[in-house]
Amino acid sequence: MIKNESKLDVDLGDRRYPIFIGEDLYADTTLFREYISGNQVMVITNETVAPLYLEKTIKALAEFELRTCILPDGEEYKTLDILNRIYTALLKGHFTRKSTLVALGGGVIGDMTGFAAATYQRGVDFIQIPTTLLSQVDSSVGGKTGVNHLLGKNMIGAFYQPRLVLADTSTLNTLDDRQFSSGLAEVIKYGLIVDADFFTWLENNMDALMARDPASLAYAIERSCRCKADVVEADEKEAGQRALLNLGHTFGHAIETGMGYGEWLHGEAVGTGMCMAADLSRRLGWLSEASYARTCQLVERAKLPTKPPKELSRDRFLELMAVDKKVLDGRLRLVLLKEIGHSLVTDDFEMQKLNETLSYYGS
Amino acid sequence: MIKNESKLDVDLGDRRYPIFIGEDLYADTTLFREYISGNQVMVITNETVAPLYLEKTIKALAEFELRTCILPDGEEYKTLDILNRIYTALLKGHFTRKSTLVALGGGVIGDMTGFAAATYQRGVDFIQIPTTLLSQVDSSVGGKTGVNHLLGKNMIGAFYQPRLVLADTSTLNTLDDRQFSSGLAEVIKYGLIVDADFFTWLENNMDALMARDPASLAYAIERSCRCKADVVEADEKEAGQRALLNLGHTFGHAIETGMGYGEWLHGEAVGTGMCMAADLSRRLGWLSEASYARTCQLVERAKLPTKPPKELSRDRFLELMAVDKKVLDGRLRLVLLKEIGHSLVTDDFEMQKLNETLSYYGS
Repeated sequence: MIKNESKLDVDLGDRRYPIFIGEDLYADTTLFREYISGNQVMVITNETVAPLYLEKTIKALAEFELRTCILPDGEEYKTLDILNRIYTALLKGHFTRKSTLVALGGGVIGDMTGFAAATYQRGVDFIQIPTTLLSQVDSSVGGKTGVNHLLGKNMIGAFYQPRLVLADTSTLNTLDDRQFSSGLAEVIKYGLIVDADFFTWLENNMDALMARDPASLAYAIERSCRCKADVVEADEKEAGQRALLNLGHTFGHAIETGMGYGEWLHGEAVGTGMCMAADLSRRLGWLSEASYARTCQLVERAKLPTKPPKELSRDRFLELMAVDKKVLDGRLRLVLLKEIGHSLVTDDFEMQKLNETLSYYGS
Repeated sequence: MIKNESKLDVDLGDRRYPIFIGEDLYADTTLFREYISGNQVMVITNETVAPLYLEKTIKALAEFELRTCILPDGEEYKTLDILNRIYTALLKGHFTRKSTLVALGGGVIGDMTGFAAATYQRGVDFIQIPTTLLSQVDSSVGGKTGVNHLLGKNMIGAFYQPRLVLADTSTLNTLDDRQFSSGLAEVIKYGLIVDADFFTWLENNMDALMARDPASLAYAIERSCRCKADVVEADEKEAGQRALLNLGHTFGHAIETGMGYGEWLHGEAVGTGMCMAADLSRRLGWLSEASYARTCQLVERAKLPTKPPKELSRDRFLELMAVDKKVLDGRLRLVLLKEIGHSLVTDDFEMQKLNETLSYYGS
């Protein structure tokens, strides 16, 4: 029944869990049975995803005491207030500590459900069924959960690992083009930070990916998850190496926050952010002009923006970057590139060069 | 400078931390310096505690970049909304991941500050300065943090350990009598669940404790913390043994919830809850009549109520106990006594006996 299935283990000590990648996974009752220990299951999803996949999911989970919680769709609803709706639904349903929450949706649903699981009665199990490319390659691995605050993105949260992730490639067929490209931004990121061969593979297969060829997609998802898992396994609590995953994100968060959540998709902001990080890297003399050009070209071929919105001046950028949580003790730390496939986290660069990058992109 | 100081280590693997017990500890700059790694410190306290101890605390922390956050006082403010004020203060102050939060206050401040620390930017350091007897013997050990939900107490939270606890006995002089007695409920609990000798010591020293004799207090706090630490070290995530700490709490939570938070103090509800648990234990033939009488007498000598409020009928009690998170898979689990100093967690008892206890106390 499962086509093109592959399995990946994320090894985080006693919190080891598998990611299954393939088609029609979320309809597979057997998989769920193995990873749900209690009897109470709540599926948390949103108004966009529910009409597409909720019925099938409910059928696969029919043997459990099942409830659903349908939230509004959008990053602007990733708040404490909306999170509270999940708690209320759980309490009204008399859900105990042996419950399992199932996140059916994109990154917002995954982050909120994961945080609800981390904090409901101080921790219950959860399973992720990411339904967007972005969440399949990004949120599936790493255990980052949380909500936004008016004053900053992802400022409230916890590290919490799921029991199981089902990355079902069949759900990608219903994704709109912007959302799909947004997911590719993170895929490109993995090539840039740790995997030069994968970056080359992406250059050779970008047309197939844009055409949503299932086999190419499955490969890209698996390799992305593997890259991320390798980084996270080495550094679960983000003390050092893990910060590489933030390539393009400090610039990107500034764009997202400055424009108001939801205007730019996360991946769009990251796409531009990676170009800006590559630009700063070449200005510092670390990255060749050719590699900078390859970076921008691949981002562009994924139909992602390579330039920030005109509304954001250099000064506004700096202001927005200063509240980003990658700032450590007042110094700005960024992920920069030494070469394609080789990145580093550093606060050891001339601020003048950053100003040049911001001025260059701000014009 | 520090009088009657003693130190206790809570050994939770990589999250080992010390509890210092003594007088005027929180004025000790040196202690703080050793346990604060970054430069940013936020002291979180409430409107009652601030006039008493905030100035001294600020002085001791003068070398850091310091801010304060003063919350309203009371269990009814232990909510997501009030928690959000802490996040806002932290974000407005540009607090980074290397920040330390200091909880200066009772259990509510400790629980909320701990949860804020667990979830601000997915985790920052925190230090506890519990200023009530209850929080010194209870919240100091175990890492339980969180807030209430309208539909249940402590339903949202996380396990998160402080870096340091300062149990300063000099702060107990300003406690009102009800609060003080409320703290003694938990002290008595430790004797009942794991330490018969301590229970006997309490019988012999209850008058001195009620007179707030400093040396007796210091001993009672240290021994209580040691009892709790032993239980928690063996079972950090509350899989089994740790649930013993809930003696009297399932009955107690029903009283607190049924009466509305704040009507009964937590310790008052627990005091009555322990009498009810002892009553059920004797009805099951597990506890002698004499031990039941000793239990009620000691609770009474601590000036704690030994009977629930008349407003709560047997049926209302059962209803309230069913949403308590100690219910596992639909069966009601309670902590009961085999003897003073010997307790167990069980769902293996006749419901008829529970009905008898509730009817007996409901009349």
